[in-house]
Amino acid sequence: MLILALDVTDGERAVKIAKETSEHISAIKVNYPLVLSAGIEIVKKLSDLKPVIADFKIADIPYTSSLIAEIAFTHGARGVIVHGLAGSDTVKAVKEVADRYRGDVYLVTELSSKGGEEFMRDCSDRIVEMAVEMNVAGLIAPATRPERVAEIKKAAKRLRVICPGVLTQGGSIEDVLKAGADGIIVGRAIYNSPTPGEEAMRINELITSFLKKYK
Amino acid sequence: MLILALDVTDGERAVKIAKETSEHISAIKVNYPLVLSAGIEIVKKLSDLKPVIADFKIADIPYTSSLIAEIAFTHGARGVIVHGLAGSDTVKAVKEVADRYRGDVYLVTELSSKGGEEFMRDCSDRIVEMAVEMNVAGLIAPATRPERVAEIKKAAKRLRVICPGVLTQGGSIEDVLKAGADGIIVGRAIYNSPTPGEEAMRINELITSFLKKYK
Repeated sequence: MLILALDVTDGERAVKIAKETSEHISAIKVNYPLVLSAGIEIVKKLSDLKPVIADFKIADIPYTSSLIAEIAFTHGARGVIVHGLAGSDTVKAVKEVADRYRGDVYLVTELSSKGGEEFMRDCSDRIVEMAVEMNVAGLIAPATRPERVAEIKKAAKRLRVICPGVLTQGGSIEDVLKAGADGIIVGRAIYNSPTPGEEAMRINELITSFLKKYK
Repeated sequence: MLILALDVTDGERAVKIAKETSEHISAIKVNYPLVLSAGIEIVKKLSDLKPVIADFKIADIPYTSSLIAEIAFTHGARGVIVHGLAGSDTVKAVKEVADRYRGDVYLVTELSSKGGEEFMRDCSDRIVEMAVEMNVAGLIAPATRPERVAEIKKAAKRLRVICPGVLTQGGSIEDVLKAGADGIIVGRAIYNSPTPGEEAMRINELITSFLKKYK
């Protein structure tokens, strides 16, 4: 499963890349730089092409977090990403909103950046436990640390584990799939390519071949 | 110091409340529900009335976090709120953007909600240390736990400590100022009042009298 992290800030360019890549990707992940620049309506436009995961890394009190999730789902998002670190009450509040829309909740375990090891590493095993208990859709785990992906996937049981941090950020697609990841999130390597459609096809074929080998 | 948490989702209502309360508040804190509903331009409109703190609880990898901060500051924000939990690289990336705009960075220590005790409590003392080392403008501490405000203020040294969680969320303004807080964030008690201006005046006078007593 290839998820496109559509981290451009121009709405028209975002739609163009989404169209060019759509037959090779499973979902589009959108983050705040795009949504703040192009307006929340971009979520609706993209969700007409592919399921959209709103990567809002929600990390607020339950009341505010549920409002943010509500806005994402009313604009067509299929899933939202929440920081488990915000606590079980926040995750529960977002999940209640998601359930009304039959939407998915993904919890961040550790950021793929270096700083993800400073504080989040100390909490991530407990966040995985909470995710399993609360039966959310999946977990976001760092492709930059495949050994952690393996540990997280083992503890995550049947929850999906999807991983950002490959290619531009340094992670290896093969290592991460070998570690048990169910999906790979790719951003810059695709949207900065002169031919995003071809690049998405190439990466998706690579993922498919590794999944056959390791799953 | 009274900061208005302007957590309504209607842009016109937001501007109306901001105008009515502006002479009794020091700053306006805006969060995603308002910005996603009304568009990022609302930050500019409100910043023409009062300094705006963009409470985006930024908690992403450094690259994405710096893009979010850049959008806040180019739209007139005076400060941004970041989750220290994201790691020192993320805080550094945001601070570099803020410094270019002579803007302020505030780090969340623990959310004021119950869930803020589950994971964040284990990291918050280290986040305060990081904030002091990196010389950010201030810290966000939970008014719902005044004993934590006192500990955080002691460790924060000369950094400002501002606290959400009073009134509707249960915290006492007097307890929090007695614990050493420099500012109080009030949302629902003001914007849900039939007379927001009068309520802001009343709360601001209360804060001023307690600050005289305890500072």
